[in-house]
Amino acid sequence: MSAIQNPYYSSEFHGEYDLISIGRLDLEEGGSIPDCHLAVATFGTLNEERDNAILVTTWYSGTHQIFRDAYIGSQHALDPGRWFVVVVDQIGSGLSTSPHNASGANDALAMSAFPHVRIGDDVVAQERLLREHFGIERLALVVGGSMGAQQTYEWAVRFPDKVRRAAPIAGTAQNTDHDFLFTRVLAEAITTDPGFAGGEYSSNAEVVAGLERHARIWGVMGFSTEFWKQRVYQALDFSDMDAFLAGFLQPYFTAMDPNDLLCMAWKWQRGDVARHTGGDLAKALGRITAKTFVMPISEDMFFPVRDCGAEQALVKDSELRVVDDVLGHLGLFSVNPDFMPQLDAHLSELLETTA
Amino acid sequence: MSAIQNPYYSSEFHGEYDLISIGRLDLEEGGSIPDCHLAVATFGTLNEERDNAILVTTWYSGTHQIFRDAYIGSQHALDPGRWFVVVVDQIGSGLSTSPHNASGANDALAMSAFPHVRIGDDVVAQERLLREHFGIERLALVVGGSMGAQQTYEWAVRFPDKVRRAAPIAGTAQNTDHDFLFTRVLAEAITTDPGFAGGEYSSNAEVVAGLERHARIWGVMGFSTEFWKQRVYQALDFSDMDAFLAGFLQPYFTAMDPNDLLCMAWKWQRGDVARHTGGDLAKALGRITAKTFVMPISEDMFFPVRDCGAEQALVKDSELRVVDDVLGHLGLFSVNPDFMPQLDAHLSELLETTA
Repeated sequence: MSAIQNPYYSSEFHGEYDLISIGRLDLEEGGSIPDCHLAVATFGTLNEERDNAILVTTWYSGTHQIFRDAYIGSQHALDPGRWFVVVVDQIGSGLSTSPHNASGANDALAMSAFPHVRIGDDVVAQERLLREHFGIERLALVVGGSMGAQQTYEWAVRFPDKVRRAAPIAGTAQNTDHDFLFTRVLAEAITTDPGFAGGEYSSNAEVVAGLERHARIWGVMGFSTEFWKQRVYQALDFSDMDAFLAGFLQPYFTAMDPNDLLCMAWKWQRGDVARHTGGDLAKALGRITAKTFVMPISEDMFFPVRDCGAEQALVKDSELRVVDDVLGHLGLFSVNPDFMPQLDAHLSELLETTA
Repeated sequence: MSAIQNPYYSSEFHGEYDLISIGRLDLEEGGSIPDCHLAVATFGTLNEERDNAILVTTWYSGTHQIFRDAYIGSQHALDPGRWFVVVVDQIGSGLSTSPHNASGANDALAMSAFPHVRIGDDVVAQERLLREHFGIERLALVVGGSMGAQQTYEWAVRFPDKVRRAAPIAGTAQNTDHDFLFTRVLAEAITTDPGFAGGEYSSNAEVVAGLERHARIWGVMGFSTEFWKQRVYQALDFSDMDAFLAGFLQPYFTAMDPNDLLCMAWKWQRGDVARHTGGDLAKALGRITAKTFVMPISEDMFFPVRDCGAEQALVKDSELRVVDDVLGHLGLFSVNPDFMPQLDAHLSELLETTA
């Protein structure tokens, strides 16, 4: 089938961004993307020495827009007055080359024909983009949350000389079995919807029931038990949990493309820097030379602090910086007013280090 | 439709038990079960004073059999040499009156026509059974895990004079919103299977895909992240996580009846002793006179220690006794050799108190 339209993946919902071709991208799992486009939003100016660049990587379902809205600004560590911040949307995000928008030279990859993409493919694509398009050879910082943390670790292991500092937030270098199971359950909520039709639906609206179930599973794992107990959503003007699901989590996901989500889910399940070292995680993380702050979220139910801490212990020049947030993993949305101040403090301190 | 056969719900799989009629049971939500049968397994002998009776209540998907296999015996606190232990399978368990087996006088309640049952209905039924059938007016102990803890709390609040000691394990007196959401996701995995057919399937085999998804969701929430990380299932001779799912969790649930599971799920979602006190949980728990040991499992992902501890603090004569188990909630299966020794120590101490 050919690519389909989905108005969600537009500047109307994601603000300004550039769509930059990096040409043909050969994939780790075989096959290639003939003309890979990356959606890129930049903030600030690259200095003459080209040493003030920060790469921000994106999470499952997320794009650059959340970073523009909440993470980047003169009041934040990611200050465009000082840094050249480049946010690159991951392959499959719906803005970069993705199943639902594969057309033109990528026409043969549309929808269910889209190939499996790995975290490593994203990082290779990003490195090429930064080098060829921006002339950036070394990054002052790579930072990202969740799947963005997977990409951050991949950068630091694959290109140690190019990463001065790294800040993986709420994510791991090697995906856990539990996360694999969780992500499979998410994917199954989509693929078992009869409207999914093996990935050959003609509109995401045909898969709305599956996307809503997928959203409700996020409701169980994405926030903490305490988030629901304390009814934190009331601060967001939702009267009860069903209003919050119906007014926030469900529309958030039903706007998205099922194949795109599945592309990211497959990638998430298999994130693993130990692929570089024959399965030896300690050896892989031992390659990292970046000054690294590992930043799990205290109430995260599927990237728990202890999993992140175990990896941090394997990174030479690293510290564990736990971000307290009752929201759990989806604290990444920066809903809690206490979230960004903590993150900014850690990132500012990291950026001050002479790595 | 009428009742259907399911060979799982038999003595072959659940050992010996009695099926005892308690007559008509009027239900809190309206309607009634014309001839309610309770499946009951007893161990030991009721003494002349009729003061050595212990009631054991059952969890979602569980029956008396797990207690016979793992909890009851001369080496355990629940020692039939001293105590008369009565395990009553909950309504909807598949052995007691349940959607799939409603026949005879209950014929009109079969399958999708089965009425909503509440924890309070179970407790009223159990109290009548114990009084009318066994002549038991007061219990030395009520103990149960998960939904069994819900019933234990309900007993202690509804019939304070009849409960000398109470031991709610891995469960709460008032179900949490997070648990409600989790249970809804479980139920949806079943009801969205086209084979479910609105509850009017002719065999549970027609719903096997939904039951398997339901099992895999249990895989995410039922055990702890650390259970998967440490590959605890290898001690059970499963080589990897998929072998464990395919060899243990999936067959466990696919043997069961979908409507029966949904009957229990609905009940679980709404367990709440504060129904007795106009929504005032502190007032409800304040009614408890039983000496109470509240026993959450350390790694439980959906009945977390802090939720159980908050309720324990509202029970006058109570203590919080955390059971350490990396298995999390499904530690209740007593797979970990360290589980029963902890439970036995706490229960033995509780049974020694002069409540």
